[in-house]
Amino acid sequence: MVEAMDLTNLHTVSAAEAARLIRDGVIGSAQLVEACLARVREVDADVQAWTFLDPEYALAQARAADEFRLSGRPIGPLHGVPVGIKDIIDTGDMPTENGSVLHAGRTPSRDASVVAMLRAAGAVIMGKTVTTEFATRHPGKTRNPHNPAHTPGGSSSGSPAAVAAGMVPLALGSQTGGSTIRPASFCGVYGFKPTHGLIPRYGMFQLSRTMDHVGLFARSIEDIALLLEELAGYDERDPDTRPRARVCYRDIATEEPPIPPMLAFVKTPRWEHVDADAKEAFVELTDHLGERVEELQLSAAAEEAFAWHDAISGPEIALNLRREWETGRDRLSASLRARIERGRAVPALDYLRARAHIPELHASFTELFEQRYDAILTPAAAGTAPVGLESTGDPAFCMLWTLCGMPALSVPLMQGVNGLPLGVQLVGPRHGDARLLRTARWLVDHIASGRR
Amino acid sequence: MVEAMDLTNLHTVSAAEAARLIRDGVIGSAQLVEACLARVREVDADVQAWTFLDPEYALAQARAADEFRLSGRPIGPLHGVPVGIKDIIDTGDMPTENGSVLHAGRTPSRDASVVAMLRAAGAVIMGKTVTTEFATRHPGKTRNPHNPAHTPGGSSSGSPAAVAAGMVPLALGSQTGGSTIRPASFCGVYGFKPTHGLIPRYGMFQLSRTMDHVGLFARSIEDIALLLEELAGYDERDPDTRPRARVCYRDIATEEPPIPPMLAFVKTPRWEHVDADAKEAFVELTDHLGERVEELQLSAAAEEAFAWHDAISGPEIALNLRREWETGRDRLSASLRARIERGRAVPALDYLRARAHIPELHASFTELFEQRYDAILTPAAAGTAPVGLESTGDPAFCMLWTLCGMPALSVPLMQGVNGLPLGVQLVGPRHGDARLLRTARWLVDHIASGRR
Repeated sequence: MVEAMDLTNLHTVSAAEAARLIRDGVIGSAQLVEACLARVREVDADVQAWTFLDPEYALAQARAADEFRLSGRPIGPLHGVPVGIKDIIDTGDMPTENGSVLHAGRTPSRDASVVAMLRAAGAVIMGKTVTTEFATRHPGKTRNPHNPAHTPGGSSSGSPAAVAAGMVPLALGSQTGGSTIRPASFCGVYGFKPTHGLIPRYGMFQLSRTMDHVGLFARSIEDIALLLEELAGYDERDPDTRPRARVCYRDIATEEPPIPPMLAFVKTPRWEHVDADAKEAFVELTDHLGERVEELQLSAAAEEAFAWHDAISGPEIALNLRREWETGRDRLSASLRARIERGRAVPALDYLRARAHIPELHASFTELFEQRYDAILTPAAAGTAPVGLESTGDPAFCMLWTLCGMPALSVPLMQGVNGLPLGVQLVGPRHGDARLLRTARWLVDHIASGRR
Repeated sequence: MVEAMDLTNLHTVSAAEAARLIRDGVIGSAQLVEACLARVREVDADVQAWTFLDPEYALAQARAADEFRLSGRPIGPLHGVPVGIKDIIDTGDMPTENGSVLHAGRTPSRDASVVAMLRAAGAVIMGKTVTTEFATRHPGKTRNPHNPAHTPGGSSSGSPAAVAAGMVPLALGSQTGGSTIRPASFCGVYGFKPTHGLIPRYGMFQLSRTMDHVGLFARSIEDIALLLEELAGYDERDPDTRPRARVCYRDIATEEPPIPPMLAFVKTPRWEHVDADAKEAFVELTDHLGERVEELQLSAAAEEAFAWHDAISGPEIALNLRREWETGRDRLSASLRARIERGRAVPALDYLRARAHIPELHASFTELFEQRYDAILTPAAAGTAPVGLESTGDPAFCMLWTLCGMPALSVPLMQGVNGLPLGVQLVGPRHGDARLLRTARWLVDHIASGRR
């Protein structure tokens, strides 16, 4: 028996719940997409999360999904659920402009792997969300949905903003430095950067093969796990993916940990940059966690990680933007031009030395996870979203984990004195994605029960 | 019934035949190893193939192999067969000095993956063969077994010389430029450089991750296939290996091709450097092959491959020799010092651009193999072994195939006017190793039947 439900706030429903309602015939996909589009009309003039959104086309996909379901054929786990796609991820039926005037009007002939996987799972591709210029620092038009005077963060700007504002329950982004975790923290949603190579990046603008990750945004951990389950996999067109056994991320994420997790609180070498109220929030959080958390000092190598990240991503960015540099550098932002120039000057030996440090650095973390800790607890950003739109904020608190390819989740647990959201970052060992999500859910429940 | 056989030339027997004789109890491993040691005593004063060889220890291994077999336990495919190991490949029970005074007396605590695999297959580790300095250009003491006034080639110098001189039926080497194919050609043995990543390199001195390959030497194609079958495999400690289905190299190599192969004769951009008599030999060979061979012009990109190889291997060599450079560069040869200096000056962007060219270059070859040709037929070297020991010869005819990670085999088919051997190189597409060996066997049979 299907219970009567209040459908007036359909745009706030989780992806998992929406998929269930559609599967059970309680709502149609067209109804859900219409609710999301109504929300877009309501708030997007302020937020400006989208760079491409054709309401009629989104609705046409939704109606086709509804017809498909009514035909009685088997449907996928995301059937009829709308997803926002960062505009550096190719879509065969919509423009993909990579946040640059140099790629204005670019229309790829086919879908990125992740878009094809979403369509196979039944999702409606809602539209393309705003990215900074080539997923680097120069901002797009998006504003923080909690206060339009503040940045939403970046480089994934539109995706977390759209999810936070209820314009879509799920969205894809990317992370090369801190482009998923930081904006998720600023916008108050879950942002997940999985293990490097877990989700194929074919068809996503390549900035740095070593550092690029697909990022996921949602309003619940279950939704992150649902999305991850559809997107994790081997793709021979992404040389960093590997054939692996299928993991039931959703089951593991929702299951109870066998024993209460132990967390390692890591301030990182940049703790002094953290805002006073964010520091205060961490004190409260760790106090509340009591014996389930211990502070952990990182080795000196952690400080060098910033230079290593730069020595690797710099030349790789210069490589991947070489055509734009050669033919249109005057239409790149000054900051990106400067970054490419720095990247072009790095000697190959420095690049290779930096790369050679990654395995040893990661090994030092692996040891911690094996011996004692379920996850690292660390800031997602230096504080809440900074005021102004000219900067997307400081990615420093993400660099170490991006460099090591470790899974990281921003959990919207806290708030600044300005009322803006503030995320907590949880980090696990490579391929510990499922356990990390389970630990995060435990943490959220633990905090919620303390607040009751 | 075991036939009576002439055991006076036991040192000339193939590895496959030796393994069969040992398995059937016709000979003991100790008898075979003694025959090889006798050959060492006879010729090695001239050839100087070994940097470490303890006759008593080799015999002790052989006697243990014989006892093991007599115990009735199952034995491996190389049971009791002696193998020479290039001295850049770690052995847990013998020194590994990498051809440098800087590593004199170095005794690794464990076996390289390939050595462990050989022991698992029952092989006797005969000793360590001479390498050039860190498998680069500065020569070791080995002389060409066909004429001690000539170089054996390098960087694998002792291994092909030992196999050619009958001191051992099998030996391992390596190839980063032309270090297997060229010396095999000069010494008149089969030299095989398999697909990049097919044989794990863990425990072999790393010069250039992108270019390093394990190389195989033997006196027959069947022996190459036998060795390859034992050494191909996934090893998580070599990040370029992948789990793959087991291939029966030996069966495929000995089977008849379904239709007579078609060969593409590629002169390469360096054909003008080829000696007149070698050119003449190629004319004869292609004439003999008639309609089974067609000359093929390479695209202009092939000429650039030399610069790309340099831009990749240079910085990688500088990386892997950074400790030696920092603490003992005065004890490196002048040529290696100069090479490291050049490698240190390469910008990361040039390194990455060169790497980015590999997939497109390889794709252009893949197309040829898919459309028309079974293998590329091309020189293994510019001619027979040059006179003098100060240079190991020009590796130019190997660079393109090494860069692309394609399997390449030197087949001892020809002879120079000076009576020295001259190899023909056959090249296949990546992971076409088995088919390449089958095509090579067809070629050898075809030539032999023509000579009859």
